[in-house]
Parts: sequence; structure tokens; C-alpha cells
Amino acid sequence: MDPNREPFAERLTRAVQERRSAVCVGLDPRPDRIEPLFPPDVEPAASAAVFCKGIVEAISDIVPAVKPNIAFFEALGVPGIAAYAEVCAHAQQAGLLVIGDVKRGDIGSTAEAYATGLLGPKGARDTLAHHDAVTISPYLGSDGVEPFLTRAAAYHQGIFVLVRTSNPSSAELQGLRVEGDETLADAVAGLVHQWGEPYIGDSGLSPVGAVVGATHPQELSNLRKRMPNAPFLVPGYGAQGGGAQDVVAAFRADGTGALVNASRSVLYAFEKTGTTDFGGAARQAAQEMSREITAALETTS
Amino acid sequence: MDPNREPFAERLTRAVQERRSAVCVGLDPRPDRIEPLFPPDVEPAASAAVFCKGIVEAISDIVPAVKPNIAFFEALGVPGIAAYAEVCAHAQQAGLLVIGDVKRGDIGSTAEAYATGLLGPKGARDTLAHHDAVTISPYLGSDGVEPFLTRAAAYHQGIFVLVRTSNPSSAELQGLRVEGDETLADAVAGLVHQWGEPYIGDSGLSPVGAVVGATHPQELSNLRKRMPNAPFLVPGYGAQGGGAQDVVAAFRADGTGALVNASRSVLYAFEKTGTTDFGGAARQAAQEMSREITAALETTS
Repeated sequence: MDPNREPFAERLTRAVQERRSAVCVGLDPRPDRIEPLFPPDVEPAASAAVFCKGIVEAISDIVPAVKPNIAFFEALGVPGIAAYAEVCAHAQQAGLLVIGDVKRGDIGSTAEAYATGLLGPKGARDTLAHHDAVTISPYLGSDGVEPFLTRAAAYHQGIFVLVRTSNPSSAELQGLRVEGDETLADAVAGLVHQWGEPYIGDSGLSPVGAVVGATHPQELSNLRKRMPNAPFLVPGYGAQGGGAQDVVAAFRADGTGALVNASRSVLYAFEKTGTTDFGGAARQAAQEMSREITAALETTS
Repeated sequence: MDPNREPFAERLTRAVQERRSAVCVGLDPRPDRIEPLFPPDVEPAASAAVFCKGIVEAISDIVPAVKPNIAFFEALGVPGIAAYAEVCAHAQQAGLLVIGDVKRGDIGSTAEAYATGLLGPKGARDTLAHHDAVTISPYLGSDGVEPFLTRAAAYHQGIFVLVRTSNPSSAELQGLRVEGDETLADAVAGLVHQWGEPYIGDSGLSPVGAVVGATHPQELSNLRKRMPNAPFLVPGYGAQGGGAQDVVAAFRADGTGALVNASRSVLYAFEKTGTTDFGGAARQAAQEMSREITAALETTS
């Protein structure tokens, strides 16, 4: 069966259930941290590709998804972008859902160009469309999101809209009070719900997800209420400070509907082992994180 | 003299004065519109590069800047990104300021990766850093902008922060009332001013610019007051409906401090001529636009 026949949210739910894990591993190849693993003459883009593909192979049977962040590849120039495409294709072939963390956003006709490049069929060689979903910035409003949504819906892919990010200054704008008693993040959540509503599938989830940081546990439950049908992508676990109890509120009552992302705490787990077995260390860290989250969900259910 | 020795805002002011033009030409190679110019066997990325380099050659002595939008290159996959880098490098060699319209934004440590790839020295082969400035999304707040600003300041480059975009649904979030009588765009404008203040140069301009659409003339003058030291990048002229009178308010009292961007109305001017001389038609359209803006500025000064 072609998994692309099933809508994104259903594929996500199934993958989480099959792996018994809601963990998404962020693929952020930081040159200074992977450098010790490679001989000095290896090109940085080649190191990034080998490292990320090694992580993929180590975790593909125990987690449902990976989230390569294109920033770390773009930093390596054109060869870095080729490595990004290679890593995404490799992860999809390994059976993982690939969430391209690209945070794109532009006016309608330009958003259409982005959507064409980042979502859709995988026909072309060297395409950047080896994604099951991508992250999107909401600042330009509906007409900047609509082209991504149309294309995602047509190809059974998804989008995750930035709602409340995990970084320290995220409240600066996202926490501003707007009309009524809402914050800007609440207003974006309202749009996310509205954008997704026409596309809600059998699982009760839409292809329009939300990025909500684990570093704001008090807001996660409020935002879950405002977006009952949105898949949540929750960054900020581990290195950024969020823990298992903090992310429980991102899940729906039945324990579905959220992916919790960790990048540094999984990718660079080898640094604490004193070995170069980065894959083994990442696998162990991802398993541990999956167990922590499952345990936290069971305690509260 | 190495033009990189002078801060971005001063280089911008000088280029505008030398060319007697505040026009920035947006390089948005749309496959369906450039297709008639090339034999059917030319790869889309090659067509995009040839077209954009042709435009650059036709206008490099009459306008100060170009703004390639990476979305149209990303849509063509990895070869498209190589074409983007090639076009940016070509435009800089032709003496144009290059504003990379990338609208990037992420949490601090990831923004640092983007900034490393998109700004800084041009040492590396295949780098994407052939930019004099890049556009940035503000949704993540200060720590998502700071790495770009630090790097821009160090290398005498600039950033243009999205404040009020030119698209129809831009008011959906940007026009929301926040605390006091301000809109979200006003709040972002306050941050832009604050981010730029420590870096204001001899010309009275900072390296932290603002994107404010020509489609909101009533807000341009309000936002100019809130950001007296910010270079303005004004999209939405021409195809999106803004005219010369609409953009006057973006300039400072002395007629400096703004670039007005047009993409489609310049790039595809050849379509109305019945010829394939796209460079000649673009040159004429850019000259006409420069004259319109100069005339409008003179009338109001």
C-alpha cells in the first residue's frame, strides 16, 4: 500500500501507535559537535549527510518521525542543500515521516512557489519535496498559508504552523495581548483551527498542525482546547528544558495528536558516553525519551 | 576600495544617489512566464539563472539593488538553489546590492545557523552568502533576530524585518490591536527601531531595515515615524497595485532611506512588447519607475 494514499494525520497516528512512541528526532547537524566524528578532510556537507543518515538508521524502527532543520544545511551552502534533500529522501525510505523544519512564509504567489518546491510528488530528481509535512510561519496571514494547505491536502501531506515557539523571547510578540483577553498566539491558534476544519479526517485530526513549545506547559493545555483537531509538534524537550510532564497537555484525551521533538539531547547523546557510537547513543536516548513520555501519559490518563 | 568596508546603510544611500534611482528589482523567475523565452529542452534552473542574469545585465547601471526571492529557486530543487547562488554572485559582481528575500526566522541557535549561511564573508565556494542584506521574519522575537543582526553588523551587511507586508491578508495578524492603541505591526516597528539603535551610522540609518508594503500608504508614514532610522524596503509596487504617490511616505524628509521593489512589472515587461527582448523591456520599465518615484518625491518635497 502506498502510504501517501492515507492523509497525513492518519499516517502520523498510525506511526505513533506502531512504534509506541510520540518522539520526533530533530536532525540539526551542528558542525562543531559532529566534527570529532569525522576525519578532518571530509567536507562539512558530507559529514552532515553521513551523520544524519546514521541517526536515521539507528532510530527508524523506534520513533515515528524526524524533523530535519534546513537552517543547518543551508549554513553549508549549495552542497548542504543537496545533503538536506538526500537526508530527507533517506529518512522516508527508512519508513519515517519527515517534517521539514523550514519555517517558510511569504505572500500568496510566492508561498505557492515555496509550496511547489517543498510539498507534492517526489517525481523530480534533486527535489526538496521529500517531506510529509513542513513548518510554516503565520506572520503574513491566510493567503501566505493557503498555497501550502492546498498542496498538502492534495498530496496527503501536512503543515505545522508556528503558534508558540520554545525560545526565550517568543513571548515578545506571541504573548502580546490582542483584542479581548487573547494573546497573539491564541489568535494564530484560532486561524490554525479555522484553516484545518474543512480537512478533518477519520482520526479527528486535520492536516494543519501547530508548533507549541514544551517550554510553556501552562499554555499547551489552553492551546490544545483552541485547536482540538490539530496535530501538535512540540519542540523544546531536553536541551531547551521541557520534560515529560510538561508535554502531556499537548496530547488529546485519547493520547494521540502530538509529536514531541528533541534534537540536541538525542543527536549528541554520544558526547556523554565517551565513545563515537553516535547512533547507539541516540537510539538509547530516543528510547528513554519515548518511555518517559509514555509513562507521563499513562499516569495522567 | 572594498565596498564591504562601508556599512550597509551608507552603501545603500550612495548607490541610490549615484543611480538617481530608489528602485529595487525583484528577481522572481516564474517558470510559466519565462518558458516562452527558452527552447523546451533547457532545464528550468538553467532558464531561471540565464533569465535573472540577463535582467541583472540590463539594469545594473540604472538601479541600486536587486532582490532575488529564494522561493522561486527553491521550487526548482537543488539545482535551483545553485542557480540562486549564481545569480546573487553575478549581481554583486555587476555592482548591485543584493537583498536576499529569504524571510527566515527561527530560535536563537538555529537563527545563528541561518545567519552563518546567508550573511558573512564570501570565502566559500557554493556559498549562499552573496547578500548585502536579507529579509527576516519577526514572529520568534529578539533572540531569533539577534544572530542575523550581530553577523550583519560585523560584515557591514543589513537585515530587513517584515513589519507590514503587501499581501491582501497581511492585516489578519499584523493589523491586530495590541496593548494601547498599537497594531502588531507597530509593535514590530518598535522592536526594529530598538534593534537598530546601537548601530546607527553617519547617514542616520541603521542596518536594521523594515519591509512595509506599498499597498498600505496610510500606514507607511506612521511606520516611518516609528522607525526614523530604518531603511525601508517597499514591495507591492506595480503588479500588486502600489503607485509612486503611495510610496513617498516611506522616504525620509531628505529623500533617502527607502528602496521600492517591483518584480513582475519589470521582469515581465517584455510580454507587452511582443518581442523576446526581456532585458530591454525590463530596463525601460525600471527607468520609467525610477522617474515616477523621483517625480513624486520632488512634488512633495
